[in-house]
Amino acid sequence: MAEQGEEVILLDFWASMFGMRVRIALAEKGIRYEYREQDLRNKSQLLLDSNPVHKKIPVLIHNGKPICESSIIVEYIDEVWNNKAPLFPSDCYAKARARFWADFVDKKFYLSGRKLYTTKGEEHEAARSEFIECLKLLEGELGDKPYFGGESLGFLDISFIPFYAWFQAYETYGNFNFEHECPKLFAWAKRCIRDNESVSKTLPEMPKVFDFVQHMRKRFGLDD
Amino acid sequence: MAEQGEEVILLDFWASMFGMRVRIALAEKGIRYEYREQDLRNKSQLLLDSNPVHKKIPVLIHNGKPICESSIIVEYIDEVWNNKAPLFPSDCYAKARARFWADFVDKKFYLSGRKLYTTKGEEHEAARSEFIECLKLLEGELGDKPYFGGESLGFLDISFIPFYAWFQAYETYGNFNFEHECPKLFAWAKRCIRDNESVSKTLPEMPKVFDFVQHMRKRFGLDD
Repeated sequence: MAEQGEEVILLDFWASMFGMRVRIALAEKGIRYEYREQDLRNKSQLLLDSNPVHKKIPVLIHNGKPICESSIIVEYIDEVWNNKAPLFPSDCYAKARARFWADFVDKKFYLSGRKLYTTKGEEHEAARSEFIECLKLLEGELGDKPYFGGESLGFLDISFIPFYAWFQAYETYGNFNFEHECPKLFAWAKRCIRDNESVSKTLPEMPKVFDFVQHMRKRFGLDD
Repeated sequence: MAEQGEEVILLDFWASMFGMRVRIALAEKGIRYEYREQDLRNKSQLLLDSNPVHKKIPVLIHNGKPICESSIIVEYIDEVWNNKAPLFPSDCYAKARARFWADFVDKKFYLSGRKLYTTKGEEHEAARSEFIECLKLLEGELGDKPYFGGESLGFLDISFIPFYAWFQAYETYGNFNFEHECPKLFAWAKRCIRDNESVSKTLPEMPKVFDFVQHMRKRFGLDD
């Protein structure tokens, strides 16, 4: 829990996978914080002042100091509140591997996933193949372990599990079945939710996210 | 220095800013390693096996285990060889800030810089504005400190200084003068080279890089 006198504020948006990472990490550490939902179409002065470079959520404001970019925030949380629930293994190589795959989620998985519901035709078909390939690579990295980091929820799990809330959208617009394509990864997602309150209390219901995606598509003229 | 029996191999390409980061970090820590220059147009089986996901240099192979992605490698080096030349300040907020700006160099600065010599017309003009804006933001982050991290070369310095070797190309194709636009940042670059053998011995001569860029442009049909 944050020490008395500490002020922890999170600027976030409910459906953001990146924001969910931070919420899960804060929950894992038992940090009390003030959640401030942001209107992304009408950004607050606080958000613009706190992240003038990217102007994006999430931003963690700790005792008045803003920290931006979800992976950097999660590492910060792990380093500041280091007396509980370490998010990284102590082994340097395992730590580098967790960072590598979290970066892969950001660079490859997220972008191909986004294209499933924002593109059509050939671009969509290419994104679908890439997305499923990404899932299979991540399943390979998981192997037979219960979590990516081993026996408990860690940095890579926290980086990737928020995307599970978007899977109704991914499956619908990508026209595939997650459980069928990647049974072990599917079981991992279920396990993260079943056995970790930090996850189950953070992830929104899939239909709510799906509804949000449908609205976005209409707004961008992809659906009537 | 690497302990006896330790094997450290670097798969790299001489002109890569990302590879230079790793070489500077290894030099800062005094690690002896085997440098293996890679032919990027005909990738070696070792490179493909060591980085099957991205198939890119640099890759550090430490006792047979490959680590990929330059920032992740530099953090790994700092954590494994932690008895000398710490690359991060101990303060968690300062550490998060260094990571944020290194990420900015990768996401914004590098991409706009690339466009200076790979695009024409409006795209080039937009890239030029963005590039100079990035430089000014980085100069703002430096402030009046000798190095980004304070009194000595640190993570963000190591992440950014390799780009200095490319500045003859940036200035020529971006049609601007670095010293004129950002005198403090220019002085920082000169200081990094003048006062740090790890940097001066790593960075190739600017004309050599410029020549390489000219060759690339011809190959891609941008110049006759």
